[in-house]
Amino acid sequence: MALMNKAFLDLKKNYLFIEIGKRVKEYIAAHPDNKIIRMGIGDVTQPLAKVVVDAMKKAADEMGVKETFRGYEDSGMGYDFLREAVAGYYKSFGVEVSPDEILISDGAKSDCGNIGDIFDASNDVLVTDPAYPVYVDSNIMGGRKVYYANSTEENGFAAMPDDSVKPGIIYLCSPNNPTGSVYTKEQLKVWVDYAIKNKSIIIFDAAYEAFISDPALPRSIMGIEGARKCAIEICSLSKTAGFTGTRCGYTVVPKELMIETPDGEEMSFMQLWCRRQGSKFNGVSYPVQRAAEAVFTPEGIKQTRETIAYYMRNAKVIADTFDGLGIKYTGGTNSPYIWFKCPDGQDSWTFFDRLLNEAEVVGTPGAGFGKNGDGWFRLTAFGTYENTVEAMERVKKLLK
Amino acid sequence: MALMNKAFLDLKKNYLFIEIGKRVKEYIAAHPDNKIIRMGIGDVTQPLAKVVVDAMKKAADEMGVKETFRGYEDSGMGYDFLREAVAGYYKSFGVEVSPDEILISDGAKSDCGNIGDIFDASNDVLVTDPAYPVYVDSNIMGGRKVYYANSTEENGFAAMPDDSVKPGIIYLCSPNNPTGSVYTKEQLKVWVDYAIKNKSIIIFDAAYEAFISDPALPRSIMGIEGARKCAIEICSLSKTAGFTGTRCGYTVVPKELMIETPDGEEMSFMQLWCRRQGSKFNGVSYPVQRAAEAVFTPEGIKQTRETIAYYMRNAKVIADTFDGLGIKYTGGTNSPYIWFKCPDGQDSWTFFDRLLNEAEVVGTPGAGFGKNGDGWFRLTAFGTYENTVEAMERVKKLLK
Repeated sequence: MALMNKAFLDLKKNYLFIEIGKRVKEYIAAHPDNKIIRMGIGDVTQPLAKVVVDAMKKAADEMGVKETFRGYEDSGMGYDFLREAVAGYYKSFGVEVSPDEILISDGAKSDCGNIGDIFDASNDVLVTDPAYPVYVDSNIMGGRKVYYANSTEENGFAAMPDDSVKPGIIYLCSPNNPTGSVYTKEQLKVWVDYAIKNKSIIIFDAAYEAFISDPALPRSIMGIEGARKCAIEICSLSKTAGFTGTRCGYTVVPKELMIETPDGEEMSFMQLWCRRQGSKFNGVSYPVQRAAEAVFTPEGIKQTRETIAYYMRNAKVIADTFDGLGIKYTGGTNSPYIWFKCPDGQDSWTFFDRLLNEAEVVGTPGAGFGKNGDGWFRLTAFGTYENTVEAMERVKKLLK
Repeated sequence: MALMNKAFLDLKKNYLFIEIGKRVKEYIAAHPDNKIIRMGIGDVTQPLAKVVVDAMKKAADEMGVKETFRGYEDSGMGYDFLREAVAGYYKSFGVEVSPDEILISDGAKSDCGNIGDIFDASNDVLVTDPAYPVYVDSNIMGGRKVYYANSTEENGFAAMPDDSVKPGIIYLCSPNNPTGSVYTKEQLKVWVDYAIKNKSIIIFDAAYEAFISDPALPRSIMGIEGARKCAIEICSLSKTAGFTGTRCGYTVVPKELMIETPDGEEMSFMQLWCRRQGSKFNGVSYPVQRAAEAVFTPEGIKQTRETIAYYMRNAKVIADTFDGLGIKYTGGTNSPYIWFKCPDGQDSWTFFDRLLNEAEVVGTPGAGFGKNGDGWFRLTAFGTYENTVEAMERVKKLLK
């Protein structure tokens, strides 16, 4: 008899974006002619860079010609041309990673979820709260117990280790989704030391690294002393180069990273991950890998950085608005998210309704990201400049 | 402390293609000027159809323009245009499937492996032997016990149910990899009845359906009475349209398919699978989905069927050769694989060496696919016509 994985019964209903969609739909039905401005979902709006489109088209042409056609990728772990391009990119900000430590994926979410396959169900998991819901849900599905490190107003929404927990797995995200906070090198060193002490493995989500402009802030955990012994890094081109619909990411697994066997021996983490992927994954589309390679060329970096500058101009418009209103927030610099305290002590869903009904702006209630998110609210800088300016005018009028 | 998933220790070393690679490399090193013909790995060699390349390039262009740019796909389960195209394709061979029962994936291997997430570890698994190694390995990783239904010379390498096993999950593949055998409607009906009796779920791998030319043979399990209550179907464009390097597939999950909860209640299989994918997958690249859509247009069907006819001409050359030699085989019609009995009672690795050393042809030893594969050998029709003809001349000379 086929029996379901009972761990799925422990999942909370994934109602955040469904509930937002429902409330927005109802509002539109009642006010069909009004202009709603959406600053809720973390999706990009600007097109792919020309150099990226050209590379994808060239590769598509190659696939149509017998002499240059490509079938299965031998390893399924990414073509050397792309692994070398990513290694070169790391080098450009001073982090040494070998191309054979870089594994190409169809996006950060896939690797972030699938990596759980190689961990025993008995591992305790430490997740910062608030957090991207995938960290929690994928581990609940794997039957693992999840503990939380609190990101709060007091610590600038940058949670630090909790010595009462001895986790097997730790999830960190910096720049953070949803709070926009960025760990300093010193803070990451504390996490690395804690992981080494507890023999934990850190899964470091660097999806927003390209938004860091302050050279003092770390764009990768791999540059922190000791990290190669206790961390993997998951990154994506979704936000770096607008690949949310094109799908490509990469995961850095240091050669020296080991994981404990049931006998107290150690086994190569890379070897286990490659075995998993070898049975359950078959590599990323060749034209997509060529498109990704183009992102890391000098021209690709130039073009994609222009788009990031466009979004960061939006972020400044939002941040300036909240500065002017005297409302506390994190993010907005070195991050495309602005995470602010709901005015007048409102809870985040009440403020959601107020913002929707009175300013016709859609954001994301912080409560959807964890208990510490209640009373806080996320806006994204991924809209158009014109809409961002207009939304902020409305917010000013509402909250003045 | 991070602890590995101990089930990985139960995996057999995945040595088949590594061992083949090693022996071929050694032979080439000793005979650097000789021409080796490879008929081992099941990868395609012919380019993508023009209509497919054009569609991908057009979609790449759309991604470069703000007005037509696409970010995250809302559901992550595939665009309606592709789900409708696949439903229309099913209709063309007489099987009714609703577009919202079709979920788009990055390939059959991903879905085939990841689907395990929604099954409890306590489910017994029934796999035909010989079989595609992914069925076994992905279930071993999930901590499930695997039983085998024997495909043998006596049953034409088309295993039938084993009443001594009450499996939760059953894997069937037709046309079969590696044996090339194809189940009849009557045989599939026996499997469906067995699954319903045992409340099992059949995972039906239809990756080679496009090679069926006999209208009496079923191209989908979904046309078999009762299948919608006990089966899902996993398919791919890899062999249908040469997408091994382009990456797109689809999985059919009937709305009425249920799976047991720990309380003896029933839950929608589709709902669980969508929940899994919602946390661990983010959809297939938009330009790839447009390329896949083009496969199912009248022009796309015409162009891709020409390539399949090319491969099936190769299959005929191989089949005719073994007919002429009086060597027993399955496949070769309605399948791109020819599965033959090693001559002179040789085991499959001994024959591998003989074929390599004396004919300079590389094939796949049947032992690599399971215990019933020993003494048998797989050749594929995916090479070029010229090489296939030349390889068969060599085989004739060797075995005459």
